[in-house]
Amino acid sequence: MKVNEKLQALRKLMKERGMDAYVIPSFDAHQSEYVPEHWKSRAWISGFTGSAGTVVVTLDEAGLWTDGRYFIQAEKELKGTEIKLFKMRQPGVPTYSEWVSGVLKEGNCVGFDGKVFSCNQAKELEGKLKDKNIKTDDRYDLVDIIWEDRPELPLEKIYMHEVKYAGKSTKEKLHIVREEMKRKGAEYYLLSSLDDIAWLFNIRGNDVNNNPVTISYALVSMKEAIFFIDSRKITDEVRHFLKENGVEVKEYEEIENSLKNIEKSSSVFYDPNKISRWLYGCMPESTKKVQGKDICMLLKTIKNEVEIENLRKCHIKDNVAMVKFLYWLDKNVDSEQITEISATDKLEDFRRQQENFIDTSFDTIAAYKDHAAMMHYKATEKNQYTLKPEGMFLVDSGGQYLDGTTDITRTMILGEITDEEKRDFTYVLKGHIALCRAKFLHGVTGTNLDVLARLPLWEQGIDYKCGTGHGVGFLLSVHEAPQRFSIEHNDTRLEKGMVITNEPGVYKEGKHGIRTENTLLVVEDQLTDSGQFMKFEVLAYCPIDLDGVDISLLTEVEREWLNNYHKDVYEKLSPYLNDEEREWLKRETREI
Amino acid sequence: MKVNEKLQALRKLMKERGMDAYVIPSFDAHQSEYVPEHWKSRAWISGFTGSAGTVVVTLDEAGLWTDGRYFIQAEKELKGTEIKLFKMRQPGVPTYSEWVSGVLKEGNCVGFDGKVFSCNQAKELEGKLKDKNIKTDDRYDLVDIIWEDRPELPLEKIYMHEVKYAGKSTKEKLHIVREEMKRKGAEYYLLSSLDDIAWLFNIRGNDVNNNPVTISYALVSMKEAIFFIDSRKITDEVRHFLKENGVEVKEYEEIENSLKNIEKSSSVFYDPNKISRWLYGCMPESTKKVQGKDICMLLKTIKNEVEIENLRKCHIKDNVAMVKFLYWLDKNVDSEQITEISATDKLEDFRRQQENFIDTSFDTIAAYKDHAAMMHYKATEKNQYTLKPEGMFLVDSGGQYLDGTTDITRTMILGEITDEEKRDFTYVLKGHIALCRAKFLHGVTGTNLDVLARLPLWEQGIDYKCGTGHGVGFLLSVHEAPQRFSIEHNDTRLEKGMVITNEPGVYKEGKHGIRTENTLLVVEDQLTDSGQFMKFEVLAYCPIDLDGVDISLLTEVEREWLNNYHKDVYEKLSPYLNDEEREWLKRETREI
Repeated sequence: MKVNEKLQALRKLMKERGMDAYVIPSFDAHQSEYVPEHWKSRAWISGFTGSAGTVVVTLDEAGLWTDGRYFIQAEKELKGTEIKLFKMRQPGVPTYSEWVSGVLKEGNCVGFDGKVFSCNQAKELEGKLKDKNIKTDDRYDLVDIIWEDRPELPLEKIYMHEVKYAGKSTKEKLHIVREEMKRKGAEYYLLSSLDDIAWLFNIRGNDVNNNPVTISYALVSMKEAIFFIDSRKITDEVRHFLKENGVEVKEYEEIENSLKNIEKSSSVFYDPNKISRWLYGCMPESTKKVQGKDICMLLKTIKNEVEIENLRKCHIKDNVAMVKFLYWLDKNVDSEQITEISATDKLEDFRRQQENFIDTSFDTIAAYKDHAAMMHYKATEKNQYTLKPEGMFLVDSGGQYLDGTTDITRTMILGEITDEEKRDFTYVLKGHIALCRAKFLHGVTGTNLDVLARLPLWEQGIDYKCGTGHGVGFLLSVHEAPQRFSIEHNDTRLEKGMVITNEPGVYKEGKHGIRTENTLLVVEDQLTDSGQFMKFEVLAYCPIDLDGVDISLLTEVEREWLNNYHKDVYEKLSPYLNDEEREWLKRETREI
Repeated sequence: MKVNEKLQALRKLMKERGMDAYVIPSFDAHQSEYVPEHWKSRAWISGFTGSAGTVVVTLDEAGLWTDGRYFIQAEKELKGTEIKLFKMRQPGVPTYSEWVSGVLKEGNCVGFDGKVFSCNQAKELEGKLKDKNIKTDDRYDLVDIIWEDRPELPLEKIYMHEVKYAGKSTKEKLHIVREEMKRKGAEYYLLSSLDDIAWLFNIRGNDVNNNPVTISYALVSMKEAIFFIDSRKITDEVRHFLKENGVEVKEYEEIENSLKNIEKSSSVFYDPNKISRWLYGCMPESTKKVQGKDICMLLKTIKNEVEIENLRKCHIKDNVAMVKFLYWLDKNVDSEQITEISATDKLEDFRRQQENFIDTSFDTIAAYKDHAAMMHYKATEKNQYTLKPEGMFLVDSGGQYLDGTTDITRTMILGEITDEEKRDFTYVLKGHIALCRAKFLHGVTGTNLDVLARLPLWEQGIDYKCGTGHGVGFLLSVHEAPQRFSIEHNDTRLEKGMVITNEPGVYKEGKHGIRTENTLLVVEDQLTDSGQFMKFEVLAYCPIDLDGVDISLLTEVEREWLNNYHKDVYEKLSPYLNDEEREWLKRETREI
């Protein structure tokens, strides 16, 4: 079926059920950003394959809402369909709920699948519709009816994540969680987010590409901790490990009954951004609902000392792979036939050779020339470029290791570049350095600091339509909430032990794309009369291509930062390189 | 009565009424920051005279909550009383509502005067108390009973603010307001904030020191606009002017009946941060309440073209007064007996000589040496210093003119200063320049930009415990909402036509205080593929004391900014100075 045919099939079902619009988000039943094939309903119906977006279909219109990372990609992928692109957060562009409340009439009905809508998403939509007296129906997954060859849910085995990596045992984590539940006055704590569950139980899975999580729910009480998961995924060893740590296993579907049967007068803690409308509805109405930010989300984002030591080591390994790749590329780009995909494969090979490597942490973005203007470009056999010794090549990639998760971007200068490209590369670097060097009072958020990375670009009239950085999991999601660098309001304070990326960029459609990304660790700086000051420790060490730098645009302080950084890169990585690579690295990290 | 006696008298009344705590905020019935003497209950009962603070009295304890601007002053003024200082927003310090809910028991009662608590303040307090089943009683103004010589409400005459200054007539403003009411689906719009009422009706008063407002309420419907004010304040001329513009006058107390008598099914727009709990309670329960940010607040903060032209002119006048003062000070500090108060009087004299001068815009802060460490220091005959040709002298002052309101701070180097003082002066300047030079994408808020002013100080482990800047009214309040530069979340976007101050500082208790403040106007910069960029136009031109600048700490860009700024200062002000002053200014604005 083509996209427009799918939309017609959907409209037929909508009419039968009295729906005038139907909303298809990109989330799964666990509010995951990366979802198993089974739940890629939005991609299936629209053809838009980006990681974030919402499709709304009315009886005579259809729209896709996505953010700045995907404007260019969405335009391409929606071509030839009747779906109109709505560029989120651009001036004058309505949100999908505003739009749907605008085009529908009083008494109309909007349908959505309550299993993939969080409580807050459902509430937000209903709030917009209420004023106009538009109803909602959250009972049906209509895409399921028309999606004939829909993939099954995965059944990959799960494995233990040892304390030598995780730093804290499941028992310890459960103890901390229960202390927090007491503070909140909650007898139960309901979890649905896959990374929070994996963190709490010190287990990892393989159900979702690049995300070592397993499809499951969890319910923690003062006495019990129940793990709802398809039992076919559990080996005897893992079952034993879970039991030892006080974790009981029930089948995935059992969550419904378990929730229905909790004591009617009990109190349940849940995060309305993580728990689906359907899951919420499973709890007896009379239970006291205690809302808040997910307990495990807030705990796991502060990395413990063991995790931090592991992260430092795992980044060195990852950076060694990067440098070997960069050397290979530099040496062979003018003699070998290297494409975006073959380069991606080569880089993955280098990572695979590193100890404890599990998987890449997301689909590598290997984007040559104007392809790099698409922030989340994915090369295909059909659209990919072959590299030449000219222009710029952006590679954003990362690895999942037993001892951590990495995420790094470098933009390589393969040969001749324009003055504009060189200036843009340098402005990106200036922003990157400003944020990396920041010293800040404890208590500030990523919203307070984001401007530091953006200012050198704003001075040139350039902005990037995305945040400047995101949290990173530990052998978990490469995008981990709640901290962020962004202009939009985020109330999470930057705390010691948090990991966050620093990735300003320039994206000029049809021309070029540049991004320089390192992962940072929040650490304490001096304590003074004014309070506790904080700063960043760089976790990633990988050369920044000096051929892209217009030295005349750098301040003395910036030049010094770059020289010191490159000195560290050489010192940290050279022991793991062969002679040729080491010599190449020496040159790439030369003082300027 | 001494403070502790007043507290005992209050406790007696509390006991009689079954109250276990009583809360006294610094606001009046109109949520004003600066209030007439009649409403200075918090200052009367506690002896703390700062502009912001809340006193909470329980049967055996008493506390004052105030912000970083007043920590040092509050400590001094509370000395010898039983009132404990709570430093707001410092780590581990509870808010007053958290504190009171902590010290009281289930079933206790907290009293407050519903006339001086906004709807949101009352709701916030009650929210904190609800969980612990603590009641509230908002019926009584207990301070009124024990305050024997309480000043009467003022009865100063009001006057018209002509269109040649205001830019828009009352009729035009009412038309715009009614359009906005239609968009919000409101038939009535209730106003209680004095500056919003003065702006809407193009009138000014003299009821509050430094604030040309008049105590009043207003109620706007599609057909009527009612101005509730003591009729003794209105001349025939003003009455005629109001009638011509479609404004009806009723007595101040009539607001209660007018609200009680509005149609029971009508809809009323109000701002829950501005309307008091008591005023809200006057409206029939059945009316539909439409909440939002005050319409006039949002309109008046965007200055129109006429206002902007006036502001540019009025700042030049104000800066001429400043320069005459600085010259006089520089010339006489080592020969004459100059005190903090006599300097303040001299500066006011120079302002008074300027055309259209009405009043100072706030109590001048003239603080020598360690006095300047108190952000909002007020000199008294008893505590003031006599200036000597050494150290630093901070003067923060401003004027109310028919053609605008000003607010400027300069820190003068009177002679020898320490290296630390010079460094601190220079870091403040670096922050000031960074914020002033910022170019930013339309859509950002003061929360996004605040860090630019703070970063050079943070790098030295120094922070100032207040925002970096505030909006400024037009012949209205010198602190005008809603825009702000602050680390705390503020969701007001910086729009073309907004006025905002830029005033980073260093405050070292017992040592010195430094602040450099200019008023900025938000203007448009370039429009590019990335969107509309914005920047600041400086409104204030007054030399920054070069004797405080450690040139070796400035970047090339900063040096250039300072030289260009000083060049402009000389060009704009020299035509209004005598030969000696001009020569002095030439030297003070020399290139470095």
